[in-house]
Amino acid sequence: MSEEFVLYHDQYVKKQDAVIDMEDRGYNFGDGIYEVVFVYGGKPFAMKEHFERFISSASKLEMQLPFDAARFVELTEGLIQKNDLKDGMVYVQMTRGASPRNHLYERDMKCLVTGFTRHMKPPEDLHKAGIRVYLTDDIRWLRCDIKSLNLLGNTMAKRLAADHNCHEAIQHRDGTVTEGSSSNLFIVKDGILKTHPANNLILNGITRQVIMKIADEQGITVEEAPFTIDELSDAHEVFISSTTMEVTPVIQIAGQLDAHYEIGDVTRTLQNRLKKKIHGSAHIESF
Amino acid sequence: MSEEFVLYHDQYVKKQDAVIDMEDRGYNFGDGIYEVVFVYGGKPFAMKEHFERFISSASKLEMQLPFDAARFVELTEGLIQKNDLKDGMVYVQMTRGASPRNHLYERDMKCLVTGFTRHMKPPEDLHKAGIRVYLTDDIRWLRCDIKSLNLLGNTMAKRLAADHNCHEAIQHRDGTVTEGSSSNLFIVKDGILKTHPANNLILNGITRQVIMKIADEQGITVEEAPFTIDELSDAHEVFISSTTMEVTPVIQIAGQLDAHYEIGDVTRTLQNRLKKKIHGSAHIESF
Repeated sequence: MSEEFVLYHDQYVKKQDAVIDMEDRGYNFGDGIYEVVFVYGGKPFAMKEHFERFISSASKLEMQLPFDAARFVELTEGLIQKNDLKDGMVYVQMTRGASPRNHLYERDMKCLVTGFTRHMKPPEDLHKAGIRVYLTDDIRWLRCDIKSLNLLGNTMAKRLAADHNCHEAIQHRDGTVTEGSSSNLFIVKDGILKTHPANNLILNGITRQVIMKIADEQGITVEEAPFTIDELSDAHEVFISSTTMEVTPVIQIAGQLDAHYEIGDVTRTLQNRLKKKIHGSAHIESF
Repeated sequence: MSEEFVLYHDQYVKKQDAVIDMEDRGYNFGDGIYEVVFVYGGKPFAMKEHFERFISSASKLEMQLPFDAARFVELTEGLIQKNDLKDGMVYVQMTRGASPRNHLYERDMKCLVTGFTRHMKPPEDLHKAGIRVYLTDDIRWLRCDIKSLNLLGNTMAKRLAADHNCHEAIQHRDGTVTEGSSSNLFIVKDGILKTHPANNLILNGITRQVIMKIADEQGITVEEAPFTIDELSDAHEVFISSTTMEVTPVIQIAGQLDAHYEIGDVTRTLQNRLKKKIHGSAHIESF
């Protein structure tokens, strides 16, 4: 990391030169947003869609954008090249910037963009074998549609899952299953794919959207509808999706549910088609 | 501010020397806690109680404390003296510190303490005249008992209130009134004082606790019980409480309720008794 560049405003600098004010609102209020884009063989996947969502998150928080989506894409591509990132992730966040600490924000604040890259490979072993997940209460706020830096509920759920040897936490609100702590959740029953609607209770994952498009192309019926823990329990197949996890089958649920699943045809089809889309995609081309 | 010292770990440094890593978990996840203590004539009020809560918040987030409560008090007193703060606030926060970004936190991370002071006077004009507040939905997470840096719900409510010429937002969850965006809320009906119980839905304010103690001393019945918007509407007196606002009467509610209130005897009694306690209190003595 220390050899690499980070994004700071619209510059590429060494990490130690990325000065963060201790009264940056990101640091005092979690007042900011972010995106994670995965890079395969030097090519970012669905980067345009990620920055469209970034701009939507900024709008929901009334943050003033220093650049348009195209410039964000350009700066992120530049960082990938600068760090010679072949396989891995690029992280970009934007906070509302620094001002004397005050709950009340001003709409015209100069936002601070930071970003970094990390070399990593997709977890092919988990894609094959599947994962255990831990079902717990969704204690997060009611604007999970914003990809914000207020992530304590997510991190607490993730810690709980790890303490029970689970790779991910999945959450429910009063019995309605919402999503993972850093992923979306899908179930398959009688060949029908089901996932929580993209409302204020979940983040509308880019990978989630790609999967729904693939399902449609494959003639698989998709229902965006709330489902209960009982339905989760009765599902034939379960998988999570995210930028870093792609389609990862769930083979066991622990915690508030005790259930085991086979990795089924629908999951494998979507997983393979997603990989095909990823590796067939031109640079920052739309899915 | 630039002339003043800030707290950084256990040192007093110039603000520009307080280095924050862009991968500090406080900056990426809002993974941290804070306290605000008010200083009157050079004397902090209820500082011990503030740091007891700080340590409780740290424990709830499984953060490892670099010092005990006494040392936090000592360091904060030192900052007050160093900056010659007579009247104002001191802010102290602690984040889980820096590590390569990952939702999953480790329990043994080296937390980072930062703090600053700000010269200000209590808003005596508002204490006298009262304020308008704005009633809106409580969209925050379900661990408001932790004084954490995940404050977006609070800041959004505060912005909404200010846009309607209100000094503070007050929030309700499905019709049950919880608290303000940075204050607790009390109502008075037939001489009985009522406030939301100190559970996971509100922050148990230090000033809130002092007020309940004063009420008890004054023979005023206190009920810690949930109350509805209808009860709020029917109240004889309404006030908010916080470290910086002390007891501030509410004279009007806008937003999801349209109501006006007189400033009553119970409010004035508690307000005056609180001021007496504050100005009579020895240095960091318990209330």
